[in-house]
Amino acid sequence: MDQMAHIKPVAPEKAYRLMNLGATCLVAAEKDGDADIMAAGWNDCLDLVPCKATVVIDKSHYTRRLMDETDYFAIQLPTAAIADVTMKLGSISKNDDPQKLEKSGAKLFKLPGTDIPMVEGCACWLLFRKLGEEAMAKTYDLFLGELVQAWADDRVFQDGHWLFETAPKDMAVLFYVAGGHFYRIGEPLDVKGYDHLD
Amino acid sequence: MDQMAHIKPVAPEKAYRLMNLGATCLVAAEKDGDADIMAAGWNDCLDLVPCKATVVIDKSHYTRRLMDETDYFAIQLPTAAIADVTMKLGSISKNDDPQKLEKSGAKLFKLPGTDIPMVEGCACWLLFRKLGEEAMAKTYDLFLGELVQAWADDRVFQDGHWLFETAPKDMAVLFYVAGGHFYRIGEPLDVKGYDHLD
Repeated sequence: MDQMAHIKPVAPEKAYRLMNLGATCLVAAEKDGDADIMAAGWNDCLDLVPCKATVVIDKSHYTRRLMDETDYFAIQLPTAAIADVTMKLGSISKNDDPQKLEKSGAKLFKLPGTDIPMVEGCACWLLFRKLGEEAMAKTYDLFLGELVQAWADDRVFQDGHWLFETAPKDMAVLFYVAGGHFYRIGEPLDVKGYDHLD
Repeated sequence: MDQMAHIKPVAPEKAYRLMNLGATCLVAAEKDGDADIMAAGWNDCLDLVPCKATVVIDKSHYTRRLMDETDYFAIQLPTAAIADVTMKLGSISKNDDPQKLEKSGAKLFKLPGTDIPMVEGCACWLLFRKLGEEAMAKTYDLFLGELVQAWADDRVFQDGHWLFETAPKDMAVLFYVAGGHFYRIGEPLDVKGYDHLD
């Protein structure tokens, strides 16, 4: 997949639409050259503009320590093309295998302004600055962030609209249930009379 | 739709799978016989067992006042069959029209142990007790709840598993983007080797 040419910045006022779906994500963090990426099912939008988001990261994860110790994290939405990589990133801990990222098959790249590794085969990549609600992280493993910058693959998100109808089928985002079982995003459903809200 | 015979309690240890998808929901609250229901895109799972969840409800909504003043709220996942009702519940405020619920076309019913109105045509219904994090509600409009009881339609969720593959097509849950535009939940995608996590 030569995705690099398709990665475009997303207008800040439309970035919430990337988070709106509540799709399964990859969460990445980095400190002093040490990085980790893990799958996380529990992420959500928290505000429109600037876009804010929440994500739940349990204390048992290596990624969690990096998130506790740094000010930024990335949320990326993996597509069907990398469902197997997503499972590996979600089931193997860097606490157990320091070579986790290399062995996962994830193809990593960098985006401007951050050293957090991004994963090829995602539909979008969002960089967040932590909102500093330490009590929420301590009590509920809940992190709150405000968007710094978002990027998306222009085959699947353009001009503020998801294009799953026309995108390659393996670019569907995913919704995880359990046991390696996901659902893909499906067909559009439009309720008439609400175009003015678009 | 004669759904009542299909509504079954969900085992507490599997209820998080209802929230896992991050699908668009209806949030309902009730105080002294006054109830409201609104569509909300931003809800998520917060913990496995007991299941906890988050939902974002802006201060402008009538539902919000009810949620501020009571200890319980319900999260329900509307299906494609009631997408139009979902849009009405999400775009008309009871602040503007006290007859909002009656005019929305929502068919309401009650479940044991709560006076919060539930909506026919949902895939599942979850009753939460607020966790009392008032600062989060005040600052971010974010409510945290712990599950009291969950129910699901056994045509679409049974023995802890979603059955979108075999359920009637209009029982698909929905993911809202903007402007009346949803996506349905789509096809399953299974990554082999993770059955032990099911």
